[in-house]
Amino acid sequence: MAEAGSGGGDSTGALDPVEVAGRLIRCPSVTPAEGGAIDLLEQLLAPLGFACHRLRFEAPGTDPIENLYARIGTGGPHFCFAGHTDVVPVGDAAAWTVGPFEGEVRDGLLWGRGAADMKGGIAAFVAAASRVIAENDGTVPGSISLLITGDEEGPAVNGTTRVLDWMEANGEIPDACVVGEPTNPQVLGDMMKIGRRGSLTGRLTVHGTQGHVAYPHLAENPIHHLLRMLEPFAHGQLDEGTAHFPPSTLMVTTIDVGNPATNVVPARATAVFNIRFNDAHTSESLERMLRASFDQKGARYELTTECSGESFVTEPGALSSLVADAAEQVTGRRPELSTTGGTSDARFIKRLCPVVEFGLVGQTMHKVDERVPVADVRALTDIYAAMLRRFFA
Amino acid sequence: MAEAGSGGGDSTGALDPVEVAGRLIRCPSVTPAEGGAIDLLEQLLAPLGFACHRLRFEAPGTDPIENLYARIGTGGPHFCFAGHTDVVPVGDAAAWTVGPFEGEVRDGLLWGRGAADMKGGIAAFVAAASRVIAENDGTVPGSISLLITGDEEGPAVNGTTRVLDWMEANGEIPDACVVGEPTNPQVLGDMMKIGRRGSLTGRLTVHGTQGHVAYPHLAENPIHHLLRMLEPFAHGQLDEGTAHFPPSTLMVTTIDVGNPATNVVPARATAVFNIRFNDAHTSESLERMLRASFDQKGARYELTTECSGESFVTEPGALSSLVADAAEQVTGRRPELSTTGGTSDARFIKRLCPVVEFGLVGQTMHKVDERVPVADVRALTDIYAAMLRRFFA
Ligand SMILES: [Zn+2]
Ligand SMILES: [Zn+2]
Repeated sequence: MAEAGSGGGDSTGALDPVEVAGRLIRCPSVTPAEGGAIDLLEQLLAPLGFACHRLRFEAPGTDPIENLYARIGTGGPHFCFAGHTDVVPVGDAAAWTVGPFEGEVRDGLLWGRGAADMKGGIAAFVAAASRVIAENDGTVPGSISLLITGDEEGPAVNGTTRVLDWMEANGEIPDACVVGEPTNPQVLGDMMKIGRRGSLTGRLTVHGTQGHVAYPHLAENPIHHLLRMLEPFAHGQLDEGTAHFPPSTLMVTTIDVGNPATNVVPARATAVFNIRFNDAHTSESLERMLRASFDQKGARYELTTECSGESFVTEPGALSSLVADAAEQVTGRRPELSTTGGTSDARFIKRLCPVVEFGLVGQTMHKVDERVPVADVRALTDIYAAMLRRFFA
Repeated sequence: MAEAGSGGGDSTGALDPVEVAGRLIRCPSVTPAEGGAIDLLEQLLAPLGFACHRLRFEAPGTDPIENLYARIGTGGPHFCFAGHTDVVPVGDAAAWTVGPFEGEVRDGLLWGRGAADMKGGIAAFVAAASRVIAENDGTVPGSISLLITGDEEGPAVNGTTRVLDWMEANGEIPDACVVGEPTNPQVLGDMMKIGRRGSLTGRLTVHGTQGHVAYPHLAENPIHHLLRMLEPFAHGQLDEGTAHFPPSTLMVTTIDVGNPATNVVPARATAVFNIRFNDAHTSESLERMLRASFDQKGARYELTTECSGESFVTEPGALSSLVADAAEQVTGRRPELSTTGGTSDARFIKRLCPVVEFGLVGQTMHKVDERVPVADVRALTDIYAAMLRRFFA
């Protein structure tokens, strides 16, 4: 049984990633609970020489969240690793092969909620950093920092964005950042993410004039307006894609009228749609485009939009090559540079420095029996270590 | 106070239409209640020489309904008048200026539920018939019949259709029929109805594949299919109209998905629409047209349709001229031949003989303070009498 502050390190002081990952999984840190995970990281990093800043943020109507910013070294170049210790709920607990918070290794696999997303990734980086620090006799030729949040799977209000505010206010500006999200679809080395599409949700209400279906000239059918306004978007695609992005898509997710009378034209109709957009658009340009298109149909309507993140991309270059070289060195595969998938905190970090994402295989994330091969955790540690060595070289 | 069996007739034995209408209004015959109205007509018609057939029909899950078929004469030509004694509910009883079942005359108006729709019309015909019978010394040169139902405003299951079955089975086939519905929009003599549009309600369910909006290639959006399937009908018009009909119209009355998740593509979407169609279509041809159009879009869908009445028209000719000539003789106006408005029992009668509709002014029908000018009831009696005289001439 490991004692507090120990990550099962070897004689050089380097930590064992699988043991660290297991201990993190044993912290039941379902958003917004800290669950001991941030405490544990602080206990592991401080002895390695990291200056740790516990950042607890709260806001009206939200849960207070524990975050951690830890840095070793004071000069440049400054490499930052970003991750989240919070996990999604376990779902059907009875359906798990092993307890979701046991952190058990069985059949060469590390099982548990967060194994892939993303306690395994955090453990790999902490172990990689400890190894590089040991190789450099307890220091690094520059700085390594960790930006750890407890609120990525939740509303993300008291998480990464507020840590970034704090970093900016305190002059903590990294030169590059890697987010440890599980980016590989099938096999370690498959894919890294260099950006993400933006996401915009629109709510459209169209007004008409209620009336009897037998006298349509006395009514104005808002559903017909809605059909004519949305049909041009029914192919679901807004462009042909850009250099690093797939086409932007628009998906109507619901239309609701709720009129039970088959002989009555209703007074209004509402629709909700979501747009995932590439770097050919911004939320502002999209809203302009939508209004221009809707206006052509001549109906009275209201449109409200909510953007949960603009699209962003870190142009392929030094940082993506650094990660790809390290991944290729360890796995023999050169990761595809991708911008697919859902959102991550990388969209926030982008404002401080170039950021890419690379971590474990994501297949089981958010599912029952989330698990990763122990060999992958060790290989990712090797990749992160190779990446740090190349960064400081 | 009038005695039973008396309609306030004059010395010739002809009945007074306003007195008959008042007595009918005093029968509270809200569907399905007989309310004494059918009884009263039988009491008035039998002494005039009509052979009365009380037809009580019932069916599982419906209210039993009293109907009346009465005929004077046995030979041709055979003129039939069709009407309903049942009335719609009074609505806000306290809002009426006079009691809805008082049948009171005030300020030259006959007030009460059914005054326009259509006890006033029935009274006018009964009085007109009594006048023509008196002129012919208690007989007619042919036959006059009345097809009176107590179930026109309700489900119409045990009403006119079953009386028609009975008539057909008993060889009672008229040569022409006038339905006494209130057909005039503003002034007596404005309009007669020579047909009605059909009505078809369609329910469309489109199936897709549920999925996350960020991975649209893994989902199939049923709302997008629905938009593409219904948008071609969003102008609301299916043709340019025909000789006697306005254009057929299609109104989508509701679309419902009920998907609360803005990041999920739903599995299905449903729409309901109603078509009011002219004689360029049948319910069958419409369903074929809809399926052919929907099929082009390549979606999995289910369509169910329900036709509450095919379109029909009595081509302008002898019958419409008969009614128009009589109306013009009395009012100085020649009624427009129209096919607008909701449905009536004429759609059923059409299968036995040519049928048109002509009655009082409909402005107040189904409303609080339903009422008609006493002068209109007397003028309609004159019109119906002139019509019968011309029919037998
Ligand atoms: Zn994650
Ligand atoms: Zn009626």
